[in-house]
Amino acid sequence: MVSNKRVLYTKIPTGLPVDGEDMKVVDSTIDLDAELPKGNFILKTLEISVDPYMRGRMRDPSIPSYAPAFEVNESMTGDTMSVVVKSNNPDYKVGDLVYGRTGQGIFEEYVQVSAEYAKHAYVVRNDAKENGLPISHYVGVLAMPGMTAYYGLNEIGKPKKGETLYVSAAAGAVGQLVGQFGKALGLHVVGSAGSDDKVDYLKTIGFDEAFNYKKGDIEENLRKYCPNGIDIYFESVGGKMLDAVLAVANNFARVIACGMISQYNLSKPEPIYNVINIVTKRIKFDGFIIMDHASQYEEKFLKEVTPLLVNGKINYKTDIAEGIEKTPEALIKVLRGENFGKQVIHVADL
Amino acid sequence: MVSNKRVLYTKIPTGLPVDGEDMKVVDSTIDLDAELPKGNFILKTLEISVDPYMRGRMRDPSIPSYAPAFEVNESMTGDTMSVVVKSNNPDYKVGDLVYGRTGQGIFEEYVQVSAEYAKHAYVVRNDAKENGLPISHYVGVLAMPGMTAYYGLNEIGKPKKGETLYVSAAAGAVGQLVGQFGKALGLHVVGSAGSDDKVDYLKTIGFDEAFNYKKGDIEENLRKYCPNGIDIYFESVGGKMLDAVLAVANNFARVIACGMISQYNLSKPEPIYNVINIVTKRIKFDGFIIMDHASQYEEKFLKEVTPLLVNGKINYKTDIAEGIEKTPEALIKVLRGENFGKQVIHVADL
Ligand SMILES: NC(=O)c1ccc[n+]([C@@H]2O[C@H](COP(=O)([O-])OP(=O)(O)OC[C@H]3O[C@@H](n4cnc5c(N)ncnc54)[C@H](OP(=O)(O)O)[C@@H]3O)[C@@H](O)[C@H]2O)c1
Ligand SMILES: NC(=O)c1ccc[n+]([C@@H]2O[C@H](COP(=O)([O-])OP(=O)(O)OC[C@H]3O[C@@H](n4cnc5c(N)ncnc54)[C@H](OP(=O)(O)O)[C@@H]3O)[C@@H](O)[C@H]2O)c1
Repeated sequence: MVSNKRVLYTKIPTGLPVDGEDMKVVDSTIDLDAELPKGNFILKTLEISVDPYMRGRMRDPSIPSYAPAFEVNESMTGDTMSVVVKSNNPDYKVGDLVYGRTGQGIFEEYVQVSAEYAKHAYVVRNDAKENGLPISHYVGVLAMPGMTAYYGLNEIGKPKKGETLYVSAAAGAVGQLVGQFGKALGLHVVGSAGSDDKVDYLKTIGFDEAFNYKKGDIEENLRKYCPNGIDIYFESVGGKMLDAVLAVANNFARVIACGMISQYNLSKPEPIYNVINIVTKRIKFDGFIIMDHASQYEEKFLKEVTPLLVNGKINYKTDIAEGIEKTPEALIKVLRGENFGKQVIHVADL
Repeated sequence: MVSNKRVLYTKIPTGLPVDGEDMKVVDSTIDLDAELPKGNFILKTLEISVDPYMRGRMRDPSIPSYAPAFEVNESMTGDTMSVVVKSNNPDYKVGDLVYGRTGQGIFEEYVQVSAEYAKHAYVVRNDAKENGLPISHYVGVLAMPGMTAYYGLNEIGKPKKGETLYVSAAAGAVGQLVGQFGKALGLHVVGSAGSDDKVDYLKTIGFDEAFNYKKGDIEENLRKYCPNGIDIYFESVGGKMLDAVLAVANNFARVIACGMISQYNLSKPEPIYNVINIVTKRIKFDGFIIMDHASQYEEKFLKEVTPLLVNGKINYKTDIAEGIEKTPEALIKVLRGENFGKQVIHVADL
């Protein structure tokens, strides 16, 4: 018997989730010596990804949404990277690195998986051993957040060289990539973030301009840093930020509606006033959820983006918390804007 | 010398425009016997179109928008149909029927036009003499409003048979056509309007369901009349109507952002709360202005829609006011929702 900590979801939060109330890390054990039924295998979790959309899963299950509600007193799930430590399944061999897909990788130190569950949830990703990248990249830039940035900018944003791209939450998991992909496409890239350190980071990775949106009036800052207006807005924040962008946007602008994190913990959403600009400026304001596209898009995405990382053409800052017991706190940090880069939990070494 | 009344724009309105203050019909004269410079011709105006977007032209000219601001103490302009009564221009012969393009047909009983101005503003439309349709149709269903309905529904709405289409301002110039085009495409069509008479009319022209949005809660009515949700919303109203639609819309819904008439006379726009649905439901909320597309789209549009009218496949209700002096009042009526069908001013007989 070995110790096996699990991250449980325990209650629907009101507002910002509370560690120990809405989520709890509990002790349990697993018998690594017991015989495995045919098709089963055991994963040791290496990395856990903590993402804003998890807040949306902490809801009354009767409310439909794109990602299923978490079940109370079950382990939370999300993107994970693991290694197979025991196996009775020829498709998952001991030593294989395995990616747990968005919403399906189980947040426990060890997980016994059936062939049936594995089919849709877990993918062998042994290239992660070969190319020298940190394993945490396989739940970040090379997983859901990276694909979100790439798909959103290219497929919804339809960028044209020389246009101005504005990115909010720009130092985060998705935003830092959007800006770098935008630069590679010849865009004028402007970002905002909630601290001066983050703003400095944005400049080091090639953003043309960056500002701290907590200082000064957002609309004024947008007019200052986007003197030619905004052609493409990668929207992660919502609320006042969105309203200011609608005011500053150019004719024929595209709003890539990826997320509205400033609204996730509010009981009543903030009002938006400038929607009429969508008509008068012929704005395209288009929502997307990457999971709708992942299965068709993943191969192309990995093929195009992995070499950019291997060759150092793209930077990716990760904010790593040590130990599975940090998972609830890390999610709360992300929702408070206290993460700096992609939030990951390092659970164990390979 | 003959009398020549002109519709002047006289002042930027605050809120709803006022007849006699912000617009005035003034007397003047024109000499129909004077010799015409080469290229010039004289039009006698038959029909004037009165449209909501004119309110947007009554603004401080320093504020940019898709249609140029009206100039104070100049004649107002918009879609017109006229007949050439005198000509020194071989392209515009006496007796020709002439369409004055959106924003360019001059609101005077007689207009002397130069070849230069005519080139972009006035088009000979002699088929209007041949097919037995009322000439007023040539400033309505066969002009800007008709093309708006057709382009918006098809190009932005991307309708698929069996989907639910909801149309606000459904008994108006654009809306009544959207619904009928939708039915022809096999959609389930639901409309709303601001009086019971209008609602009855919608049912006679084939809307599957229609309701008076002034009675009862809009969201409740939408849930009742759109039991399968809303896949396509033809948006003409904005404000509370839009907010309710965002709540009821299905995943992957399209909002055809055509206009937001409920906001045109407000000094501060109404707040919208449900924008986060654009992300979670992957809504496409896309604005368009038909004038961006008119030149490439008009031929196709007229070819496809004219026979539908000639063969009685499509109904078009027109609200006709008699005499050019009714123009300001008619615009105010449209902005107050008191028109019933496409608002036109009958200025003179052919
Ligand atoms: N559509 C999709 O499929 C999809 C996929 C992935 C992510 N997303 C969305 O994309 C956005 C970014 O996700 P991410 O994974 O890259 O997270 P992230 O940016 O790494 O972390 C969230 C960041 O949002 C900012 N933030 C938090 N609360 C805020 C508030 N009240 N107002 C303004 N900013 C706030 C903070 O940065 P600051 O320092 O800038 O405040 C925080 O660091 C989120 O909205 C997420 O839901 C959508
Ligand atoms: N994007 C473009 O290129 C384009 C082109 C043409 C028109 N449009 C827009 O399309 C919409 C319809 O234009 P239309 O020419 O067909 O006009 P219309 O529907 O014939 O007349 C306007 C109608 O809007 C409704 N309305 C007026 N005030 C309202 C309010 N405060 N709240 C709710 N409804 C109100 C009234 O009908 P009810 O009885 O239903 O209240 C009124 O009859 C307008 O928003 C217009 O600006 C856009």
